[in-house]
Amino acid sequence: MFKYSNAKSGRHFLQIPGPTNVPDRILRAIDRPTIDHRGPEFGVLGRKCLAGMQAIFQTTQPVVIYPASGTGAWEAALVNTLSPGDAVLMYESGHFATLWKNIAVKMGFKPEFIEGDWRHGAVPEAIEARLAEDKAHTIKAVAVVHNETSTGCVSRIPEIRAAIDRAGHPALLLVDTVSSIGSLEYKHDAWGADVTVGGSQKGLMLPPGMSFNAISAKALAAAKNSKSLKSFWGWEEMISINKNGYFPYTPNTNLLYGLSEAIEMLVEEEGLENVFARHHRFGEATRRAVRHWAQGGAMEILCQDEREHSDALTAVLLTQGHNADALRRVILENFDMSLGQGLGEVSGRVFRIGHLGDFNDLTLMGTLAGVEMGFEVAGIPYRKGGAQAAMDYLAECAKKPALKAAA
Amino acid sequence: MFKYSNAKSGRHFLQIPGPTNVPDRILRAIDRPTIDHRGPEFGVLGRKCLAGMQAIFQTTQPVVIYPASGTGAWEAALVNTLSPGDAVLMYESGHFATLWKNIAVKMGFKPEFIEGDWRHGAVPEAIEARLAEDKAHTIKAVAVVHNETSTGCVSRIPEIRAAIDRAGHPALLLVDTVSSIGSLEYKHDAWGADVTVGGSQKGLMLPPGMSFNAISAKALAAAKNSKSLKSFWGWEEMISINKNGYFPYTPNTNLLYGLSEAIEMLVEEEGLENVFARHHRFGEATRRAVRHWAQGGAMEILCQDEREHSDALTAVLLTQGHNADALRRVILENFDMSLGQGLGEVSGRVFRIGHLGDFNDLTLMGTLAGVEMGFEVAGIPYRKGGAQAAMDYLAECAKKPALKAAA
Repeated sequence: MFKYSNAKSGRHFLQIPGPTNVPDRILRAIDRPTIDHRGPEFGVLGRKCLAGMQAIFQTTQPVVIYPASGTGAWEAALVNTLSPGDAVLMYESGHFATLWKNIAVKMGFKPEFIEGDWRHGAVPEAIEARLAEDKAHTIKAVAVVHNETSTGCVSRIPEIRAAIDRAGHPALLLVDTVSSIGSLEYKHDAWGADVTVGGSQKGLMLPPGMSFNAISAKALAAAKNSKSLKSFWGWEEMISINKNGYFPYTPNTNLLYGLSEAIEMLVEEEGLENVFARHHRFGEATRRAVRHWAQGGAMEILCQDEREHSDALTAVLLTQGHNADALRRVILENFDMSLGQGLGEVSGRVFRIGHLGDFNDLTLMGTLAGVEMGFEVAGIPYRKGGAQAAMDYLAECAKKPALKAAA
Repeated sequence: MFKYSNAKSGRHFLQIPGPTNVPDRILRAIDRPTIDHRGPEFGVLGRKCLAGMQAIFQTTQPVVIYPASGTGAWEAALVNTLSPGDAVLMYESGHFATLWKNIAVKMGFKPEFIEGDWRHGAVPEAIEARLAEDKAHTIKAVAVVHNETSTGCVSRIPEIRAAIDRAGHPALLLVDTVSSIGSLEYKHDAWGADVTVGGSQKGLMLPPGMSFNAISAKALAAAKNSKSLKSFWGWEEMISINKNGYFPYTPNTNLLYGLSEAIEMLVEEEGLENVFARHHRFGEATRRAVRHWAQGGAMEILCQDEREHSDALTAVLLTQGHNADALRRVILENFDMSLGQGLGEVSGRVFRIGHLGDFNDLTLMGTLAGVEMGFEVAGIPYRKGGAQAAMDYLAECAKKPALKAAA
């Protein structure tokens, strides 16, 4: 009767930096009958989701919800604000910035791509310098990725906003927050973003298939002059009909059930500040683990600027001669955990630990233990004790409230 | 907008020694419409579940499935085989053995309870000595708990069978496997058990509400002479109607959907030998962690016999002056993990780590990290590095197949 089997016990550890683990509550919310998207019940759902997304983007301005994945919302940000031939200044922070630039090319815009090293966020000074040269204001928008999912580097959006302002340039600021919204602090209004692009499948803990544009008054004004052809992505009709909680075309109703649940969890129950603090704890614990392992000489954290470490994921760069994909395969086969692969320029040399979304201290410890055991099994040199270093930090964090209460 | 919240992120760690985590597959299987329990579709389901339970109990003899929790199957084992006033020799291995003895009293039998120290399984020599004295064969059955969930001690059933045989005594052997079946090796036929009692909510990974009797030919023969009043628990009608996959009264259809899925997972996909090996790995890793922590002077593994360590759970005894319930509270509040409390005689001094059911290496590491961080936060002395010791062992286990393949 005995036969060897690849059957898995327990839950898979989905520790790619998104799509992230969907909480049971959200799965159950989605698992309800689809309703009439023109009926009275839908309006309540639609209004709740639209208001909740304003809270999450920290804006009082319109948020548009697309029944499309994040790539669509990238396109929407461009085609609503720009006209064919318009120049847009983009920054090569990594793979996702590159993909967004490629869309701009395909859609007939003229992206100017500031070269980056994939180990930093967008450099505000470089943006300022380029805009200062653009006396004729031919650049119509600056587009940057807030949390670059391929590198684990965060671009400092308030500093980029300040750089644009210092250059006295009227360009719009377009920001991709697909892998940061709902995990890392982000303030659409206070930080002066004009269009913020978001997606459902990372910090919002939903399946993929839904995406967002948060839109400033300045962006809306620009949209009135945009000559780009658009229908599905067009803001005007969408915002007009959204006022009552409805959509101009068929919305993805069941993902809205899930979004409604996610809004309750993040905004009403845990509170965004707690969500951000929790992710910071995960990020710091992970970095302590990686720095400890790195003393074995075979790896380093990809992100090189202390100010720019992502609390949503950590990308680890292996030194020459070590294969990150082989390591990921060993970890998947032995410990049933998926880690993110190196993308584009860092393919094969980088693996990425996702620590965002529906995630807690003990899941993080399982994750870090799986990485550390993976080094051991794959024969990658590491200094033992990285998971222990993370544990020490998490236990210290847990002790803090008690210390405060005693004070 | 900011408010402190007790909202939890990520999955709760349910590490009590049962009810255990129910796999999503099983939850989805249960989540189907109830069907006619007299219709043709049901017979297929019933036959599959009955045959599957024979495979799990490792028997070719009848298995009865009750739509009732395990306490009922304890009662069934007694009322089917014994008559009012019959003597039954029971062994005080811990809290659950004591509860079974209490049922025997309530149902009008005369249990004789061999005193135990709650740190060992049932002692075969003690049973043999008592049976040898019983020349008149007034003792009709010996009842022992295979895996004592309150102590983490396993009774050595084959040795108890041999002890009964050496005494030349005709008593039936009744065995409780509620917390071992589907996790620890158990062979109803080969080990010579007469009635084996099982439950759905531990190794079988189902919600509570279903329980089992596996029944030997000798037990069936004894049942013919039993004078105990019974209806719901009666084997005869049940076994007769089971032949076609049906039940004499309403079965819990949706748990049978779940059981059918569990049988596929345990028997057909992973394979019972792999299931047992996996649990042994979890048990050994956990004991290595506890032995390491114990060098801090504040705890020990409750089970004192190396041959009797349970691979389904580990009970940890804290030294005087340390409160296990306070520790469990700290762990629940800080790390969202439920551990088993000390029951009966060891209340407040013992906590129990469940490592059975739908569970994998990384979940175990999250669990052990949570315990170790709990010691730190609660101020219980421990030697740091227990989780690391478990990790070292699990990584070694992962490396073994590779070593074998290379050999």
